Amino acid sequence: MRAREKGILIGRMAPGPLNKISDVPGVRVGHYTLDTEKYKTGVTVVLPCPDSPYDRPLTAASFVFNGFGKTTGLLQVDELGSLETPVALTGTLNVGLVHDALVEYTIRQSPQPVKTVNPLVCECNDSGLSFSADRPVKKEHVFAAIESAGADFAEGDVGAGKGLRCHGLKGGIGSASRIVKLEGAGKSPQEEARQGGVPSQGPSPGEALPEASYTLGVLIQTNHGSLPDLCLAGLPAGRKIAARLQAEGEDKGSVIVVAATDAPLSDRQLRRVLKRAVTGLARAGSYFGSGSGDVFVGFSTCAANRIPREGPALRMVQLLAEDQLDLFFRAMAEATEEALVNSLLAAGPVTGFDGRRVRSLPEFI
Amino acid sequence: MRAREKGILIGRMAPGPLNKISDVPGVRVGHYTLDTEKYKTGVTVVLPCPDSPYDRPLTAASFVFNGFGKTTGLLQVDELGSLETPVALTGTLNVGLVHDALVEYTIRQSPQPVKTVNPLVCECNDSGLSFSADRPVKKEHVFAAIESAGADFAEGDVGAGKGLRCHGLKGGIGSASRIVKLEGAGKSPQEEARQGGVPSQGPSPGEALPEASYTLGVLIQTNHGSLPDLCLAGLPAGRKIAARLQAEGEDKGSVIVVAATDAPLSDRQLRRVLKRAVTGLARAGSYFGSGSGDVFVGFSTCAANRIPREGPALRMVQLLAEDQLDLFFRAMAEATEEALVNSLLAAGPVTGFDGRRVRSLPEFI
Amino acid sequence: MRAREKGILIGRMAPGPLNKISDVPGVRVGHYTLDTEKYKTGVTVVLPCPDSPYDRPLTAASFVFNGFGKTTGLLQVDELGSLETPVALTGTLNVGLVHDALVEYTIRQSPQPVKTVNPLVCECNDSGLSFSADRPVKKEHVFAAIESAGADFAEGDVGAGKGLRCHGLKGGIGSASRIVKLEGAGKSPQEEARQGGVPSQGPSPGEALPEASYTLGVLIQTNHGSLPDLCLAGLPAGRKIAARLQAEGEDKGSVIVVAATDAPLSDRQLRRVLKRAVTGLARAGSYFGSGSGDVFVGFSTCAANRIPREGPALRMVQLLAEDQLDLFFRAMAEATEEALVNSLLAAGPVTGFDGRRVRSLPEFI
Amino acid sequence: MRAREKGILIGRMAPGPLNKISDVPGVRVGHYTLDTEKYKTGVTVVLPCPDSPYDRPLTAASFVFNGFGKTTGLLQVDELGSLETPVALTGTLNVGLVHDALVEYTIRQSPQPVKTVNPLVCECNDSGLSFSADRPVKKEHVFAAIESAGADFAEGDVGAGKGLRCHGLKGGIGSASRIVKLEGAGKSPQEEARQGGVPSQGPSPGEALPEASYTLGVLIQTNHGSLPDLCLAGLPAGRKIAARLQAEGEDKGSVIVVAATDAPLSDRQLRRVLKRAVTGLARAGSYFGSGSGDVFVGFSTCAANRIPREGPALRMVQLLAEDQLDLFFRAMAEATEEALVNSLLAAGPVTGFDGRRVRSLPEFI
Repeated sequence: MRAREKGILIGRMAPGPLNKISDVPGVRVGHYTLDTEKYKTGVTVVLPCPDSPYDRPLTAASFVFNGFGKTTGLLQVDELGSLETPVALTGTLNVGLVHDALVEYTIRQSPQPVKTVNPLVCECNDSGLSFSADRPVKKEHVFAAIESAGADFAEGDVGAGKGLRCHGLKGGIGSASRIVKLEGAGKSPQEEARQGGVPSQGPSPGEALPEASYTLGVLIQTNHGSLPDLCLAGLPAGRKIAARLQAEGEDKGSVIVVAATDAPLSDRQLRRVLKRAVTGLARAGSYFGSGSGDVFVGFSTCAANRIPREGPALRMVQLLAEDQLDLFFRAMAEATEEALVNSLLAAGPVTGFDGRRVRSLPEFI
Repeated sequence: MRAREKGILIGRMAPGPLNKISDVPGVRVGHYTLDTEKYKTGVTVVLPCPDSPYDRPLTAASFVFNGFGKTTGLLQVDELGSLETPVALTGTLNVGLVHDALVEYTIRQSPQPVKTVNPLVCECNDSGLSFSADRPVKKEHVFAAIESAGADFAEGDVGAGKGLRCHGLKGGIGSASRIVKLEGAGKSPQEEARQGGVPSQGPSPGEALPEASYTLGVLIQTNHGSLPDLCLAGLPAGRKIAARLQAEGEDKGSVIVVAATDAPLSDRQLRRVLKRAVTGLARAGSYFGSGSGDVFVGFSTCAANRIPREGPALRMVQLLAEDQLDLFFRAMAEATEEALVNSLLAAGPVTGFDGRRVRSLPEFI
Repeated sequence: MRAREKGILIGRMAPGPLNKISDVPGVRVGHYTLDTEKYKTGVTVVLPCPDSPYDRPLTAASFVFNGFGKTTGLLQVDELGSLETPVALTGTLNVGLVHDALVEYTIRQSPQPVKTVNPLVCECNDSGLSFSADRPVKKEHVFAAIESAGADFAEGDVGAGKGLRCHGLKGGIGSASRIVKLEGAGKSPQEEARQGGVPSQGPSPGEALPEASYTLGVLIQTNHGSLPDLCLAGLPAGRKIAARLQAEGEDKGSVIVVAATDAPLSDRQLRRVLKRAVTGLARAGSYFGSGSGDVFVGFSTCAANRIPREGPALRMVQLLAEDQLDLFFRAMAEATEEALVNSLLAAGPVTGFDGRRVRSLPEFI
Repeated sequence: MRAREKGILIGRMAPGPLNKISDVPGVRVGHYTLDTEKYKTGVTVVLPCPDSPYDRPLTAASFVFNGFGKTTGLLQVDELGSLETPVALTGTLNVGLVHDALVEYTIRQSPQPVKTVNPLVCECNDSGLSFSADRPVKKEHVFAAIESAGADFAEGDVGAGKGLRCHGLKGGIGSASRIVKLEGAGKSPQEEARQGGVPSQGPSPGEALPEASYTLGVLIQTNHGSLPDLCLAGLPAGRKIAARLQAEGEDKGSVIVVAATDAPLSDRQLRRVLKRAVTGLARAGSYFGSGSGDVFVGFSTCAANRIPREGPALRMVQLLAEDQLDLFFRAMAEATEEALVNSLLAAGPVTGFDGRRVRSLPEFI
């Protein structure tokens, strides 16, 4: 059961058919879960495109709201405005090995020798449930997660979400999406581009354009927040559960948001959209604790704006006008909040390596 | 009537005695309001300390969430981590003249020749109600606002708030505060400092400290948000009012937050606290529209951390430990949200220069 | 006499025909100089395009290396990546009045009512030579500077450069330019755009392109550096002059760099180019003192990338590939260094309001 | 032979006794070098303090001038202003494994269970000489480098410098230092702190202080720049060598600068100091190419400002006045430039895995 099926309705924009990040054409998600007595951890990968992001990087951006985090790869994403690997999510202490796995994956996949690559690895801390000091996520697990990736994927206590706790309950992986309809935003070139993968020449100047429809999808890794602060669609559900459990809670731990869109946004515009993840998180109850890594990364799959590794010196790219962004801001907030709730609803209770049990939201609603 | 008296209870921390930014000792606020048929505008000033901020600057920081704004002075605040003038708020097109007024004020006040000064002027756009192209706020108005400043001050459609619209209703100036109680945070040196204005030597290393109590206060200038999105303490009040008025609305226009605290925070820590203004704004319903200047500035009045213009090369300063910040984050979110609601509740309806009438929240609740 | 005529050869790229920022087609510069016994100050304006930047903003960016400065307008330039007014330079304490003048200018010029405008005003401190506390630069002076703007303009102790001191000598305004030749960068669309002002459709995908030639121009306002540190084309000229004058010196005061190019750079790319101003400044001898406002702003005049205020939701824009930027980086460094030397060579000695005399470089070489 | 012994005199400040980063008391450096036919790579570690940086982090900061790089750990350094691991330098593709090694090292060293740690790993690309796709640097190599660390250490083609090329010649690791003498900066508390490791109470307010002497040390990893651009103490040495070799060159590849000081600088002040590395690099001939990771990190060893992991809520810390920074800026520029030249002078020629030979500077001067 997901938020919408439970009657938890967030926002006023319509979701895509799957209500997942994979509603953005070409985006796939895979998990590998380690679920032993000692280890509750894993890896989740977001594949941004069907072909190689290394050969033809995507326009990308990041925004860090609170930087108590170990995410790698943001320097170069910010400098160049591009993404050249899958986005991998894992537990904090696994970051090095997962980083190395993305290096090896890129070397294996590329027909050309790879001398430099910028792996994007995000993390939340699963040390509360998993014996993380062993760094049990190995590169084979990363390859397996990539191998398994698809448009349909599990949420909750899977993959990089296995050992997480969010708002005092079992957290993990969640996803949601929103459809953004713009008037006069030029559906045709984007549609063409989707189909053929060939950069389009776009509309002639001044030419009237049909309505355009874009998708914004979000995948979230939730490990933050305190129980009493949790809100579900504005209602203080956490306060009631906390009273029942006589639990207190501190806002500790991180949250990662990965956003994808097929809209032709520049890196600067993507960063503006990503920022609005805080809106959704705040409404679900986060105060963005000092010990949190609140890290948001995003990319545009717009074929016309892919960045050829070896290409012409001058390209034509599509760009949405700045005044078209408001609906994307709203979509980002809504999808983030709903993805968060989905991550809680899909998770079952989990008992950690030291016997500590984390309850799950479905036990209470 | 303010939020609390209306039963709109926001958060769980206690406010200070006035529930205003002036609960932080030494902070005063003054207004000058232009209220003619043509002009609905003015200036509001926040005086950070009883003595001259130019002679002994305060530790300060800023955070810009969305930069569609004309605030001046942030470059130097960010580089040096200090504030050397009052903070002035006004309408967008008045910024230049108000900037010049703060220069003249500083020159007048200083016993020494002033060759450089960094005026901090924030703004929201009141062009919807006021004929702003005339830039009617003159330097005399700024001096009058400073002259009138006190710990007790009006909220709502006064000063820089006269011509504003927030969440489709009459916006303006609001304020709120929160008490932050820390265990073992060393009340005494701070208390001493407050009394004598003399930098304290602080506790001896390792010495046990009594509980400390600090105040965080917020003043807000509200001109953002759409009506249907407005929430009051989590409840979708705006949706109901919008239905009644058959009004739609876009999230347009800016919001300025000025925060003050007597806690010994470094500039980096202040910036971390300021960021959490977004939490409060998001909960009240903002999506942080593309055309918004969401600008937050803050300062610490901690006497031990004032920065002498001519002083010893080496100083001892007080610093809160990083893990003490979480309560300040919560206080910032709560005070921002409550100040916003206060700005709406204190405002009456206003009719603009072109006959357009903006309704006020008290008409509906 | 300028650097090149004096045999001071900087770098290895060729300058444009004027070797000034106005080599970028459409860019003009104007001055208004106040030269009385009491006042040595003024205003310099850079007009970025023949038509109104307000009606059709230009892609723009900024970079602040050291933020001890009072420049206004950067928040919005950074958020939106666009410039909508001329760039005005003046003395520190004049900023407010010059800001207000740009507001009035925009209101006057615009056929539509102007409710918001983001004036870009940069400054250096001329309080050493001018009695700056009077803020003698009035709006009429700004209008006069704009009125007088042309492709051919004076350098040295004129306009905003009248009261400045750079590396212990008379500083002021300087300019230089570089031609950037790229292979396969598609001259034609840019050329067309220049001529007709109509956004071009650009080359067809994959189409082979002729060599392209772009111009990067720089205007500098110099008020920084110490005499012993000054280098001319790598030679320690300042050390010799300092020895002769028995002068010491501290690196105090600011430097503003305005860059223009007709190349189709995105705002992110422009910021990358602007950063390289530090290379030129460092080579001429700056250590970027603590009290310096080292502020760089830049814009692209590329007609295809102008941003219509009311326009289609989706546009096609031109973009240079990232690996084409290296020559722009070199051009930025070379032009900045040469513009700095030009600002020194064009300046005569000036005696300040209090009788203090600042010597000029031409007296020594 | 180092720069100074070759008569290459850079700047006017005096170096410390070793003229290395280890002139800052407590700082040590270790290398592990892989030098086989296939691999020319390794790891270099900077240990910031004799005791555990994890148990008592140091005040720290970073500055990224050009972000084409894969450095990990900067997010948290920037958010918290602290460093909790050694700084490890290596080749680009080794970053993941070296990151994992620092995690394991921290877990091993800590008496308490480690659930989170933020490894700082910087890199340059040695793929031109080393067969980097194998990621041959393993964790044992990192541990061995740490084990071998001392105040006296080799420069040139060692450790993480083995496979690098700088300004077309053999680059690698270099170091230099500068003594910063301040008047009235309070030597005593800092001296005490050095000796006992106990936070000092500092001078009484207003108390006159003896002159203070601080050290700023730099370690550099050089892999950037083109041969014709190389300058040695201002002289165009590279142009001559390039003419002799008939070599051309592009400015490609990265440069890492690690700075240490015993001065009581805040994280904001440290960042200001770090920025001035660009001054030194620019003077040695860099244009900061698009494909470069120009990453600077730094820390203060000042014992009074170490940050206890579990400590009192309120601390007293020492802070230098802002107007004392100028000499640190100069020291940073001078030490960076000299460290760069030292990295070239200490390196011998190296032949890469594919037979490509990189010449060394000592062959030419």
